[in-house]
Amino acid sequence: MINPRILKGFRDSLPQLMIQKKQIIYTLEKIFESYGFAPIDTPAIEYTEILLGKGGGETDKQIYRFNDRGRNVSLRFDLTVPLARFISQYYNELVFPFKCYHVAPVWRGENTQKGRYREFYQCDFDILGSTSINTDVEILLLIRLGMKSLNAGNFIISINNRKILNTLLEQYGLSDKSADVLRTIDKVYKIGVDNVLKEMTDNLKIDQKMAEKLLRNMNILGSSNDNFEITGEDIFENLSRLKKITKASTDAVDDMEYIFNFIKNMGVLENFAFNPAITRGLDYYTGIVFETFVLDRRNFGSVCSGGRYDNLTSLYSKNQVPGVGASFGLDRLLGLLEDKGLLNKKSTKTDLLIFFIDDCFEEYQKLANDLRSQGINTEVYFEKKKINAQFKFAERKKIKYVLIAGKDEILNNTMNIKNIDTGEEKSNIGSEKIKETILDGKSK
Amino acid sequence: MINPRILKGFRDSLPQLMIQKKQIIYTLEKIFESYGFAPIDTPAIEYTEILLGKGGGETDKQIYRFNDRGRNVSLRFDLTVPLARFISQYYNELVFPFKCYHVAPVWRGENTQKGRYREFYQCDFDILGSTSINTDVEILLLIRLGMKSLNAGNFIISINNRKILNTLLEQYGLSDKSADVLRTIDKVYKIGVDNVLKEMTDNLKIDQKMAEKLLRNMNILGSSNDNFEITGEDIFENLSRLKKITKASTDAVDDMEYIFNFIKNMGVLENFAFNPAITRGLDYYTGIVFETFVLDRRNFGSVCSGGRYDNLTSLYSKNQVPGVGASFGLDRLLGLLEDKGLLNKKSTKTDLLIFFIDDCFEEYQKLANDLRSQGINTEVYFEKKKINAQFKFAERKKIKYVLIAGKDEILNNTMNIKNIDTGEEKSNIGSEKIKETILDGKSK
Repeated sequence: MINPRILKGFRDSLPQLMIQKKQIIYTLEKIFESYGFAPIDTPAIEYTEILLGKGGGETDKQIYRFNDRGRNVSLRFDLTVPLARFISQYYNELVFPFKCYHVAPVWRGENTQKGRYREFYQCDFDILGSTSINTDVEILLLIRLGMKSLNAGNFIISINNRKILNTLLEQYGLSDKSADVLRTIDKVYKIGVDNVLKEMTDNLKIDQKMAEKLLRNMNILGSSNDNFEITGEDIFENLSRLKKITKASTDAVDDMEYIFNFIKNMGVLENFAFNPAITRGLDYYTGIVFETFVLDRRNFGSVCSGGRYDNLTSLYSKNQVPGVGASFGLDRLLGLLEDKGLLNKKSTKTDLLIFFIDDCFEEYQKLANDLRSQGINTEVYFEKKKINAQFKFAERKKIKYVLIAGKDEILNNTMNIKNIDTGEEKSNIGSEKIKETILDGKSK
Repeated sequence: MINPRILKGFRDSLPQLMIQKKQIIYTLEKIFESYGFAPIDTPAIEYTEILLGKGGGETDKQIYRFNDRGRNVSLRFDLTVPLARFISQYYNELVFPFKCYHVAPVWRGENTQKGRYREFYQCDFDILGSTSINTDVEILLLIRLGMKSLNAGNFIISINNRKILNTLLEQYGLSDKSADVLRTIDKVYKIGVDNVLKEMTDNLKIDQKMAEKLLRNMNILGSSNDNFEITGEDIFENLSRLKKITKASTDAVDDMEYIFNFIKNMGVLENFAFNPAITRGLDYYTGIVFETFVLDRRNFGSVCSGGRYDNLTSLYSKNQVPGVGASFGLDRLLGLLEDKGLLNKKSTKTDLLIFFIDDCFEEYQKLANDLRSQGINTEVYFEKKKINAQFKFAERKKIKYVLIAGKDEILNNTMNIKNIDTGEEKSNIGSEKIKETILDGKSK
């Protein structure tokens, strides 16, 4: 016999988890569609060359790569690279600006740790083919709406702009080290400001005073809080200050002012922060970058991240397609909701169980069909068993209502229904009254 | 530069296809849930040992197998084997009878041909932990309901019972050859009756008369039609005849009579057939087996197949869990619908595009939010462009309505809306009238 087990870092979704996961996906998809985003999908397996591009870094080590009949192929490790390939390949068929979303699993052979899986779902949404700042704004507003709908608690969307940092680096003559500086700053939450400073001076050989000045101007050194977040009216003050420090980054600062003013005028500034410490490690971002944190679960990391990337397709095509997008980490969100005790414990979507009292499965199914057509999810027990066994089944599955009737009661339309949660019973009622009772109970 | 391309046998889903695919999945899931089926999911990657079990046959060749850090792993090639592992692993946590559904991609390195992909979605639904014939009935009724809802045209669900064939073989002393006979008969659609007979005599060394008798008793030899389907009242006549031929298979024939009587009493016999030529190649079926054909697209093969398997978990567990289930082939269904010209051509779910006339994205977004909250999927154009360019965008995306208003018109609630399909325009109307117009248009 073979021991039934799954690979380390993977997990099964039993009904309770899967119902919640589908609910989250459904909620987000409805929002995307209400804004005019359309769904797409790409294969799980692609040529390794396509997925790794220039390669290097962590991805190279984590990707699931194998030989398929002589072809060097891999499982996708994110949805952004396949999107860049997709956009390049269908450039002439698509209508730009192209707004799309993509919900699918990705695979990374990471070291396993609590809440991190080697197979996890991402939920990406992107606007391609426009450099308009309004596309940035729309992505940010969508993240907020998504987070609100998920009811995970108070959250903050922390925004930065790569261009501001890049122009500061240029001004200080550090352009050639910008990728390294970005990556170092990206680690500030893990290693702290002092170690970032140390790495900048020791490893990147940046003059101590210069490094301090840079970090101070970015509000990382001397920040009033550990998260380096600037909120409310302080955002605008800080942006004004940045404008004075550097002339060259005026455009990027103007963009940030436009974005935050827009957010403020929409009345939702409380959910946003300007955060100069957010850099996102990835190379492809060129404008705004952002991460989203649930305030009482910051330790879970960002649950929705992204930014603007204006050169993503350059690897596959001469057609430059600028874009901006974000990605919800579904499994991380699920883990967070579970940790907060916010996951529904239901392992069924059944509203009603019809007991099997007399041997008349046909009458039960016809009755059930009538109820199903009214939007009542109805299960029929399959065989005659002691009534206690049937009650136990309903209770274990947490089905709210049970209907108890023999063949005569069905034909005479005098049935009995019981609410398992409250113990309340209604006797000798017809199917109309039954529908009413259950639909009433559902709407509560 | 890297040529943007995908692997042979794989495909991308552009919005038009993906919208349809999601619609099919959503329709089926709603039906499953209305019957009390709950969703589950399993990892795409599992130990090869788990997936292949005893192995052998086509699966061994087609499975995507690779080495993951010393582990011999594979991509799942169906959803049934992972289900057997899942049920064995969580046996103590699940409530039986367990009704579940699973929609997910599977991978097979098959030779590519039209309409066949190496990555395709299956949509499985199963009832586990019951030997009740009523579970067989419910699966069959669900297939019918699913097929009706998909509007793919007239269809027939062809049912057989492995036990009938097995008892006939036993009676004729051919039990030791039953697997081979099954596989040979399974090929009858491809190679024809004469070649089946030839294989039985030449390869399986069955006496010519015996082979003929067997095929005649099974109504394969001498069938009145090429599909070997027996429909309507003929079903009951044939079952009576079978009862006389063999005593040992009485139980199985009784089961078939119960099933077809049930179907008849539900008033849906027209969608079903008794088909002794359906055997399903797979080893694990033990009772009813069935396939579903769209009448004017039989060449696409079965779009929903399955059967009863009472020993599926025996490989992983001492707990025997009988079950019955079926699988819709989503990509085959999509291909079939496409071939019949029944796929919607829409590449958007957007109801309304708000033109960008004045530079007031904020007012446009606020108006859009109001419309979205009423269930109207609303896109806002991102930047000021010539009105013709914006019209062209709406037309190319096949968006039905466009709203034309500057800032003043929005603030004065005197806007213009145009139906792109009909050319009809309404001028100087307020947002209430706009909602009404669009919701009217949607319900049509």
